Amino acid sequence: MMIAEQIGEASYRTTEAYIAETAACVGPKEGEGPLGEYFDAVWRDEGVAHPSFERAEQAMLTQAQDTVLSKASRDWSEVDLVIGGDLMDQLIATDFVARRHQRPLLGVFSACASFAEALAAAAAMVRQPGPDTILVGASSHHLTAERQFRFPLELGYQRTPTASWTATAAGAVLVVARSTPVAIDAVTFGRVVDWGWKDANDMASAMAPAAVDTIQRHLGALGEKVDAYDAIVTGDLGAFGMKLAAHLADTEYDFDLGGKLEDCGHLLYDIERQDVHNGGSGAGCAAAVFSGYLYHNLRTGRWRRMLLAATGALFSPTSSQQGESIPAIAHAVTISWRGEQS
Amino acid sequence: MMIAEQIGEASYRTTEAYIAETAACVGPKEGEGPLGEYFDAVWRDEGVAHPSFERAEQAMLTQAQDTVLSKASRDWSEVDLVIGGDLMDQLIATDFVARRHQRPLLGVFSACASFAEALAAAAAMVRQPGPDTILVGASSHHLTAERQFRFPLELGYQRTPTASWTATAAGAVLVVARSTPVAIDAVTFGRVVDWGWKDANDMASAMAPAAVDTIQRHLGALGEKVDAYDAIVTGDLGAFGMKLAAHLADTEYDFDLGGKLEDCGHLLYDIERQDVHNGGSGAGCAAAVFSGYLYHNLRTGRWRRMLLAATGALFSPTSSQQGESIPAIAHAVTISWRGEQS
Repeated sequence: MMIAEQIGEASYRTTEAYIAETAACVGPKEGEGPLGEYFDAVWRDEGVAHPSFERAEQAMLTQAQDTVLSKASRDWSEVDLVIGGDLMDQLIATDFVARRHQRPLLGVFSACASFAEALAAAAAMVRQPGPDTILVGASSHHLTAERQFRFPLELGYQRTPTASWTATAAGAVLVVARSTPVAIDAVTFGRVVDWGWKDANDMASAMAPAAVDTIQRHLGALGEKVDAYDAIVTGDLGAFGMKLAAHLADTEYDFDLGGKLEDCGHLLYDIERQDVHNGGSGAGCAAAVFSGYLYHNLRTGRWRRMLLAATGALFSPTSSQQGESIPAIAHAVTISWRGEQS
Repeated sequence: MMIAEQIGEASYRTTEAYIAETAACVGPKEGEGPLGEYFDAVWRDEGVAHPSFERAEQAMLTQAQDTVLSKASRDWSEVDLVIGGDLMDQLIATDFVARRHQRPLLGVFSACASFAEALAAAAAMVRQPGPDTILVGASSHHLTAERQFRFPLELGYQRTPTASWTATAAGAVLVVARSTPVAIDAVTFGRVVDWGWKDANDMASAMAPAAVDTIQRHLGALGEKVDAYDAIVTGDLGAFGMKLAAHLADTEYDFDLGGKLEDCGHLLYDIERQDVHNGGSGAGCAAAVFSGYLYHNLRTGRWRRMLLAATGALFSPTSSQQGESIPAIAHAVTISWRGEQS
C-alpha cells in the first residue's frame, strides 16, 4: 500500500492521512479576538495562578490534547505517537506534558512553523497497520516567549511597529489512518530561506520569502495553481507580512496569490483594536487558528480545499546577539473536505 | 508495499530502511580518545578561528554532512530530506547549516537523544518512490553547550564528579530505501520517564530509567531478548549511568543486560585519563560514536546486530531554575549487518 508518493523535492502526496478531530485552547486576548467562538476553551487570564508561566503553557497544551481526545471519543492509550513542538528552549512545554500522557514522543522544532512541521510529519508517518493514531500538538504563551526571546513584560519596553504578538494558545489535531471527512492530501517540507534580514523585531520580513518559496514549490509539485484552493493560509506573517508575501509572489516568483491569501497571525486578533502591531505569532498561533477556525471551515464544507503554510523564524537570542541574519522556513500541508463519510 | 509494521506501542519494524554511509567529525579531545581512528576528521582545536563557537559547531556539522555525501558519492541535490537536531536553543546549528545545503528540513529535538530520534524518524519515513534518500545529522560543541546550559568556561567553575562532558562532535548518516549491507530493522520512539531527579549535574541518574524503559519496550515489541544483540549501546549515560541502567534493568525491570551494554558517552573518552568525570554527552556524542565506531563494527561484519538507545535529558536552564525535575527520553534503533550485497 502506498502511503506517500514523492512528487517533488520534498513534497509528498499522502493517501492515508485523515483528521479525526481538533481542539484549541487560548488565552483571554485570543478569546476576545474575531475567532473567539471557534475555540474549545478561552482562559479568563494567562494562567497566572500556576506556579510559573511555563507551567501555565504546559497546562494549556495538556488541555488541548485532552480535549481533542475527548471530542474524538478516544483514550490516551489509543494514541500511538505524539508529535509536537513549542517555542521554549529544549521544548519544555511539549516535553514536560509528556510526563503525564506517557505516550511515545517525537519532538520537533521549526519555531512558529512547528505545528505545520508536526502535522506534515504525522501525515507522512500515519498508516495502517500503524502508527494509525498520531496526536499533533503545539503551543506558545505570551509571557513565556516574551521573557525568553525579548524581555520580561515587567520591564515595560516599547514594542516596535513591526513586532508580532506571541499568542497564548495551544492546538491539537488527531491524525488517523482511517477515512474521515477531512483528509490531508499532500505535504511539503520547506527549505531554509535567508535573505539576510536581521531585525528580530520584524520577523515578517524574514519569513515572507520562505512562505512564498514553499507555496510555490508545493503548488508546482502538485501541478496546481492558486485557484485550486479556497484559501492559502500562511502562519504568523501578520498584516505587513501578508502584503509582503503577496508582493514577493507577484514580483519574484511570478504567481498571483490573488484573493486567496490569509494568515493565522492576521486572523487571530483584531489588529487595530487589540494593539498587536503586526499580528499574532508563536507555535500556538497556527495550531489554535487551524484547530479552531480553519478546521471548522473544512469540517462544515465551507471550504473544500485549503493550504496551510505556517512559517518559522529560526533565530535564537544568541544568534541575534552575534549579528546573524534570521533563517526562515515554511512547511505546507494541503487539507481537503471529502464530504461526509462513515 | 509495507514500509513499517507497528509491533508495539510505538515500535515499528521497518523493511525499506538502509544505511548507505556515515561520517563523523570531532574535536581534538574526542580525537585523542579511544575511538580517534574511527572518525573522518579530527579538528586540531575547537574551531576557535571561527567568528563564534556556534559558527564552529555549524562548520563541524556541515563537514560531517558533506563528508557522508562524498563517501557515498552522492550530491546534495539527491537528498530528499534532512532530519536532524542539536542542543542549541532553537536548533541554531541544524537550522543555520540548512541555509547552505538548501534541502528540505525536518528539525527534531530530544536533547542528546536527537540523533536517535532523527535516525528513527528517517527509518520510518524513507521509502520508494520517495523520500528515498534522507540525510540524518546531529551535533554538539563543548563550548556552545557549556555557556548555554551551565557557565562560560572562562568562569573556571569546578565540575561535579557526576558531570558529563559535552562532546565537540558531529555525525551524519545517509538513510536510503535501497538495499545496502547495513539495515535499520526496527525503531521505538520512547516515552518521557521522570523519576523526580533534579540534579542537572547528574543527568545519568535522570536518563538511566528512560534508557531501560525504552530498551525493555523495544525488545518486548520485537519478541527479542538481550542475547539477540552483539551490543546494546545507550547514549550518554557514562560510567556511572551504565552501572545504574544495568542495576535498574535487573532490579526494576527484571531483565539482564548481561555483558552487552555499552554507552556512547563511555566509549568516546578514556574517562580516567581525559578527566571527563562521568563521560561524554551531547547530541553529537551518539551521532559521532555511531557514525564512526559503531557503524564500523556493523559495516565490517564484526557485529551482526546492535541496538542504539540514545538518551536525552529534556530540561532547560529555566526549568531547572524553577525547581522542576528532569524528564528524560530514549529512542531505540535496531541496526543489523545483512552481509555484502550489490
